[in-house]
Amino acid sequence: MTLIKSNTEVARNKARVHNEVLKVFLSEFFGTFLLCFIGLAINAQFILHKGQLNQWINVNFGWAFAIVFSVMATAKTSGAHLNPAISFMFYTYGNIGLTKMMVYILAQTLGGFLGAAGVYGFYYEAINNFDGGIRAITGSTGTAAIFASYPAAYCSFFGAFLDQIVGTGLLALFVSAIIDPRNEVPSHLHAPLFGGVLVMIGCSFGMNLGYPINPARDLGPRLFTIFPYGTGVFSEPSAYYWIAPTFAPLLGAALGGWLYHAFIGFHLSDPIKKDYIPINVAA
Amino acid sequence: MTLIKSNTEVARNKARVHNEVLKVFLSEFFGTFLLCFIGLAINAQFILHKGQLNQWINVNFGWAFAIVFSVMATAKTSGAHLNPAISFMFYTYGNIGLTKMMVYILAQTLGGFLGAAGVYGFYYEAINNFDGGIRAITGSTGTAAIFASYPAAYCSFFGAFLDQIVGTGLLALFVSAIIDPRNEVPSHLHAPLFGGVLVMIGCSFGMNLGYPINPARDLGPRLFTIFPYGTGVFSEPSAYYWIAPTFAPLLGAALGGWLYHAFIGFHLSDPIKKDYIPINVAA
Amino acid sequence: MTLIKSNTEVARNKARVHNEVLKVFLSEFFGTFLLCFIGLAINAQFILHKGQLNQWINVNFGWAFAIVFSVMATAKTSGAHLNPAISFMFYTYGNIGLTKMMVYILAQTLGGFLGAAGVYGFYYEAINNFDGGIRAITGSTGTAAIFASYPAAYCSFFGAFLDQIVGTGLLALFVSAIIDPRNEVPSHLHAPLFGGVLVMIGCSFGMNLGYPINPARDLGPRLFTIFPYGTGVFSEPSAYYWIAPTFAPLLGAALGGWLYHAFIGFHLSDPIKKDYIPINVAA
Amino acid sequence: MTLIKSNTEVARNKARVHNEVLKVFLSEFFGTFLLCFIGLAINAQFILHKGQLNQWINVNFGWAFAIVFSVMATAKTSGAHLNPAISFMFYTYGNIGLTKMMVYILAQTLGGFLGAAGVYGFYYEAINNFDGGIRAITGSTGTAAIFASYPAAYCSFFGAFLDQIVGTGLLALFVSAIIDPRNEVPSHLHAPLFGGVLVMIGCSFGMNLGYPINPARDLGPRLFTIFPYGTGVFSEPSAYYWIAPTFAPLLGAALGGWLYHAFIGFHLSDPIKKDYIPINVAA
Repeated sequence: MTLIKSNTEVARNKARVHNEVLKVFLSEFFGTFLLCFIGLAINAQFILHKGQLNQWINVNFGWAFAIVFSVMATAKTSGAHLNPAISFMFYTYGNIGLTKMMVYILAQTLGGFLGAAGVYGFYYEAINNFDGGIRAITGSTGTAAIFASYPAAYCSFFGAFLDQIVGTGLLALFVSAIIDPRNEVPSHLHAPLFGGVLVMIGCSFGMNLGYPINPARDLGPRLFTIFPYGTGVFSEPSAYYWIAPTFAPLLGAALGGWLYHAFIGFHLSDPIKKDYIPINVAA
Repeated sequence: MTLIKSNTEVARNKARVHNEVLKVFLSEFFGTFLLCFIGLAINAQFILHKGQLNQWINVNFGWAFAIVFSVMATAKTSGAHLNPAISFMFYTYGNIGLTKMMVYILAQTLGGFLGAAGVYGFYYEAINNFDGGIRAITGSTGTAAIFASYPAAYCSFFGAFLDQIVGTGLLALFVSAIIDPRNEVPSHLHAPLFGGVLVMIGCSFGMNLGYPINPARDLGPRLFTIFPYGTGVFSEPSAYYWIAPTFAPLLGAALGGWLYHAFIGFHLSDPIKKDYIPINVAA
Repeated sequence: MTLIKSNTEVARNKARVHNEVLKVFLSEFFGTFLLCFIGLAINAQFILHKGQLNQWINVNFGWAFAIVFSVMATAKTSGAHLNPAISFMFYTYGNIGLTKMMVYILAQTLGGFLGAAGVYGFYYEAINNFDGGIRAITGSTGTAAIFASYPAAYCSFFGAFLDQIVGTGLLALFVSAIIDPRNEVPSHLHAPLFGGVLVMIGCSFGMNLGYPINPARDLGPRLFTIFPYGTGVFSEPSAYYWIAPTFAPLLGAALGGWLYHAFIGFHLSDPIKKDYIPINVAA
Repeated sequence: MTLIKSNTEVARNKARVHNEVLKVFLSEFFGTFLLCFIGLAINAQFILHKGQLNQWINVNFGWAFAIVFSVMATAKTSGAHLNPAISFMFYTYGNIGLTKMMVYILAQTLGGFLGAAGVYGFYYEAINNFDGGIRAITGSTGTAAIFASYPAAYCSFFGAFLDQIVGTGLLALFVSAIIDPRNEVPSHLHAPLFGGVLVMIGCSFGMNLGYPINPARDLGPRLFTIFPYGTGVFSEPSAYYWIAPTFAPLLGAALGGWLYHAFIGFHLSDPIKKDYIPINVAA
């Protein structure tokens, strides 16, 4: 290919944002928008097609790759938290301050809200085809679960709260392990590995609520669904259910991250620069 | 292994093409032929076996690996666009000129046409077994959807057009993120990651049309199907439906690519050469 | 991100364990706890939802990623055996002594026991919903197979014992191949590759017993299930069945590891440091 | 871990084979034995469980990982052909001579034969449970397809022959692309990528015969099945069917490999040593 003038570089010279906060806001908003726009569309394809196309494995791998690429795109501009629980974990680590955490969470929640709006618009015809144009939150024509989580019938509020602590805790635990520099995982593999963590959680702790484990991905879309579905999205199955996927992930992430450090991270040696693992020589 | 005279090197010394345009044409033609020959065979296995062998997850991962290896084989000779929408995106980036873009698109569309012919020949017995030898475009014995996309019954032309803008837009957005040198994704991982993007789009935006998101992969095979199926392939479900998978991807790719740059790419810092990520030292 | 005081580093300076045995114990206990807590939850989702969510492919990939991330988190602190059979293999290799092996096995079995307890607590509501609150080991409302293995009806004790020799043998064989420095597999890929080995064994040798191939993952949880299910967990389908998944893996791992070395490992040349594979030049 | 005397290194010093032909024979025999022992067990789990455990996606990913790890274990001792068609392709490339090719093919076919015997022994109880102890080649209690390929009812001999040319051709084409040093694919990724090629072929060209694409994997086990199933394994569905999976792969592999070189490989430039891909600078 001949080396010619690149239009993206020309535009970059004019439009580059140098303000750190604005850059973070744009990045986290855009990343979480992409994550939710893609992820909620996966849910739509699972629910509206009643398993003909997407099965549970598609939901698991689809969301996993949505994480992989949303993180990969935004890792260098904002660290790609894309999840208030992860931002809160970094806050407890002392990696970001309180104000910065609020910027992250605001951008993420706005991204989740608009991601839900995007999916509602995109699959408007498919939703109409499914429910005959009459929106229902749950039941046989219910479609609100495309956007926000609703618990299985057997699941109590306590069960839902615990579920979100455990699910987000495992996410935070393994994210902390993967990014710990002492574990020497190459940084270009971080995003793909996060995707694997999501597959794992979906196969193990997805039965009660569908593993939202991200307040921006649950509260943002739930707020949007007030418009098409009414305020019932905050009162089904109970007036306080929504608290579980909104607040339990924060607790879980802090718990999971510090648990990793308590059992493993604190005790790791600093890596020695080496080129080759020596072979044990027979005496 | 003894180092002996390699026949491939001998033949290379005689047959090597040095003309840049011919090399690009051969590469894009062959790559898109392989992509469509393999991909349409995946569709055949999905449709003709009615889900006994291929389920949706096989379609997603099968096409993903078809992208991975078609790209990997042709990346060094032509950059492995294999999709007119991606070539158009690079044209808007100023990476290739108008004439070169036309060479790419022509080679790709020819590859798609012949890929369809190959699958028709290969699965001729299986198609006959499925429809009793009487070709139908749609319906219970319809098989034209092996080759080109046909929309779900609920899907309007506007919905189909939007679908292809969004699907191809996401493809172009993440391709741009992955290949952006400032994101420092090792080049040998580009092709595998493109495959992951395809899995993700198939799980999220594949319900309306089946995610063609590539005019060469849709128009090329549709042109071929005129021969066995008649001109109805251009008039079902409407005389203008085919316009959506043919032209919307071009718009989508340009939009998706530039959107990535507007939100992320423009604001990335130039990478600093570093060997090791420093550990935050406690004060 | 501003470089600020990291709370995890501060805490590390205070809480770091330098005692080698304690560090290994913490690491193997925590790693095997995570592996079993996640893995048995995958089984729960497979059994309790009767295939609506988890299918066999979810079980395979879910457990695989549970291995990947449990190993990745504990590789630098204890070598991430997480399996008495693997520890025994390393003992036969002379890499660890008898006392150290006992520390590994004890920590692992305790981790398995508590992992089972965790899943029982976590999915208590879901299990009650499935069996109406009356625990059964096997049969249509049986749930003990969430925790420990029970053989298929056609499977004899000899068949079960052979099954565990073969399954664990293949695991140990390929683990030995992957970590053999002469095969030059980069160490950051070891954990992801172990996951692939698990998928492979689950698809090939999972039909008789469900591939426990790890005494800590089978005996630990079986001991826990005495409390909710009674001592029948040690007498169904026979009083000696449990011996197969408890002891056959030890034999299998030693056999598989040494078989790799006998056919391949012994005969490998020491690697030559090279930057580039030379192309055969035509004469 | 304390650096102690390694028993494997001690044994290596005594048992190391230096004879090149014997080393290749051991490696190819053992690798193809592992590939077939694992792969045919995957087939057994697919056929005997009638889709309850293994679905088509398990067959695809299971065989893929069987390839990945068999190749990874034997790559340094024999180049890990594990397939007479690949050995024949290398013979046409001039990389190995005729005698050496015969050593490869003999070792591979013996490995396939014993792999089949191993699976027959391992799943003896499960096969008896499936067919009541009366062996049938095809039909509702037929189990011979665990070991060797049998074509779909609609498939002619010509169709089967073409199927094996195309399937093995694509395998050889992409293997040649992946290992071509000018494509600069890191050698530790070769084996994992070969696995991806297998998934792709299984999803696209597996409907007619089940993609054997390897004479050692088809003829070796077919020869073994004469003992339990009788000579009908060579006469169903016709006396000459077995010729297709035995000889067509050789033609296909040579064709596919050279086709890659004709369209791509010959025209690749020699790589320039570089550390960083330059960013197009705006004029």
